[in-house]
Amino acid sequence: MLPVVRLDQAQPPFYVGIDLGGTNIKLGVVDDLGRTLVRHSLPTQAERGPEDAAGRMGQAVREMLAKLGLRPEQVARAGLGSPGTMDIPAGLLLTPHNLPGWHHFPLRDRVSHHSGLEVTFANDAAAAAYGEFWVGSGRDFSSLILLTLGTGIGGGIIVGELSIDGEHSHGAECGHIIIDSRDDARICPCGQPGHLEGYASATAVIKRTEEALASGRASSLARRAQQEPLTPLMVAQEAEAGDALAMELVLETARYLGIGIVTLIHTIDPTGVLLGGAMTFGGPDAVLGRRFLQRVREEVRRRAFPVLAQRTVIDFASLGGDAGFIGAAGLARLAHRQKRHDA
Amino acid sequence: MLPVVRLDQAQPPFYVGIDLGGTNIKLGVVDDLGRTLVRHSLPTQAERGPEDAAGRMGQAVREMLAKLGLRPEQVARAGLGSPGTMDIPAGLLLTPHNLPGWHHFPLRDRVSHHSGLEVTFANDAAAAAYGEFWVGSGRDFSSLILLTLGTGIGGGIIVGELSIDGEHSHGAECGHIIIDSRDDARICPCGQPGHLEGYASATAVIKRTEEALASGRASSLARRAQQEPLTPLMVAQEAEAGDALAMELVLETARYLGIGIVTLIHTIDPTGVLLGGAMTFGGPDAVLGRRFLQRVREEVRRRAFPVLAQRTVIDFASLGGDAGFIGAAGLARLAHRQKRHDA
Repeated sequence: MLPVVRLDQAQPPFYVGIDLGGTNIKLGVVDDLGRTLVRHSLPTQAERGPEDAAGRMGQAVREMLAKLGLRPEQVARAGLGSPGTMDIPAGLLLTPHNLPGWHHFPLRDRVSHHSGLEVTFANDAAAAAYGEFWVGSGRDFSSLILLTLGTGIGGGIIVGELSIDGEHSHGAECGHIIIDSRDDARICPCGQPGHLEGYASATAVIKRTEEALASGRASSLARRAQQEPLTPLMVAQEAEAGDALAMELVLETARYLGIGIVTLIHTIDPTGVLLGGAMTFGGPDAVLGRRFLQRVREEVRRRAFPVLAQRTVIDFASLGGDAGFIGAAGLARLAHRQKRHDA
Repeated sequence: MLPVVRLDQAQPPFYVGIDLGGTNIKLGVVDDLGRTLVRHSLPTQAERGPEDAAGRMGQAVREMLAKLGLRPEQVARAGLGSPGTMDIPAGLLLTPHNLPGWHHFPLRDRVSHHSGLEVTFANDAAAAAYGEFWVGSGRDFSSLILLTLGTGIGGGIIVGELSIDGEHSHGAECGHIIIDSRDDARICPCGQPGHLEGYASATAVIKRTEEALASGRASSLARRAQQEPLTPLMVAQEAEAGDALAMELVLETARYLGIGIVTLIHTIDPTGVLLGGAMTFGGPDAVLGRRFLQRVREEVRRRAFPVLAQRTVIDFASLGGDAGFIGAAGLARLAHRQKRHDA
């Protein structure tokens, strides 16, 4: 998480970023250099429906601006990152899995109405990717792929100042590349066989753990599984405590990610691939996280074209939970500048 | 192959396109609407080295212009598509597999010297993709992926007016996405296991045919294999004549391509994916070619996200051997217009 910059040291124009998730909505005001002036979080309360949430987003934007002493006309534009499925050009949510019932809702225009700002609409992982590209681990890159590792695996691809959103708003669905095409491949939560997400998401890690325990593998995880539902955090804890099966599960997850990353870099050849999200086994600050990243890099080095094996950066993302709102603000900035350029 | 347009009906400015291959060099002069005014072909004669070939390319360009009655200053720019490996920004061939010994050669600048034109340098498959995007099967698309099916599998990805060349000139290496990550996967000609090219290139089709015959499968291909080396054309002929194994090999190739295409469209979500190159089993004009395409589409429909399964166009490319020089000219046009825009 980057430090907050004071308004009198900030560079106008200013942008609002909003990152809509199934549990929380994160918001912030960002300056022209991508520095955060203020951040805020509120519960999504998805059961209250999308119009209610859009209203509370608008209210939160007004409160942030009031707190900073900024007038709404000092904000050039807002950006809104949202989970899919969606129709980005139309500004519509279609059937988002994380937001039950929020079907075919004109989210962009309703948030614009409630906030009083023009809104740029984006996929949440694309927004996070743009945040890392603008001011995060990818700030020196000319292109990047972000994988967000969590319950599922999201993806964002940025090439130059272009986000690969896709013709049908399905670009950069990096969790759903096929890493195993055989008939007995694992089934992805999306229902299809052989996807990366079916091997390396949190859901998949738990499933693989359960299968290993059911097959009779000795592990400290067996005892924990009798007490509470398994989580990737428990796998991480037991791996750190020296359990062989748990460590094997972590490193195998890294291996699957390495395989998927090779396919992605042979397709895009970005400056780098960044790993973000909750399931990075502690990330750069943890021994286990660094071991995990090392194993991802080993698999990429082993399988990629020599030039890419040597040169493509594989690293952790650095903005944490701020990436989404910062990147949404950054995409709003691109849209604002493009518009100004056209005028 | 599109018809040639007469100079007095053509739209200036004009562009030269050059498509360098291991066996032949194809060249043409193209107008601002992507219409061909004249085309020409000469043998590469790779053994005479790159400087000799660059000289003959320059001579061929001058001859084409003389034949049309065009002065060199009426040509805005040339485009040159080349096989890799290469360093596109530097204009260098590095170690091209199809051009033995043409190592670390400044091809862009030498062709510029010999032709008297500024030259835009591109990967050959990217150039072909841009040709199909500009005036071929993808002329109504906003983005596309071209797979060139031949000895190997090449790829080009166009998003808007951007060719995904990659940070290290390794973008769109679509033949080298992993479709099988297991330890006993087929080995790609590049040496790595599990790549699409190891399953669906001409080289792979021959290998799979040989394996099937060695395993004792009854087939009319067995007799032909005793007389001459197997080729994909022979597999196509026997499939058309009703041989069950040959048909199985064709449809299995289509299935592998469908798997790879799902990974690619989940990454890029283009308007469409086009299949070009020599190994399309006769293409749209052949019963076998249409059956092959139908099987590719079936696999994509079965495995892709519902929206993409319904909407992503999967079709044959339409420019044949002209795609490369037309697309190279088109990329030269983009560079020319961009430069003019900057000035």
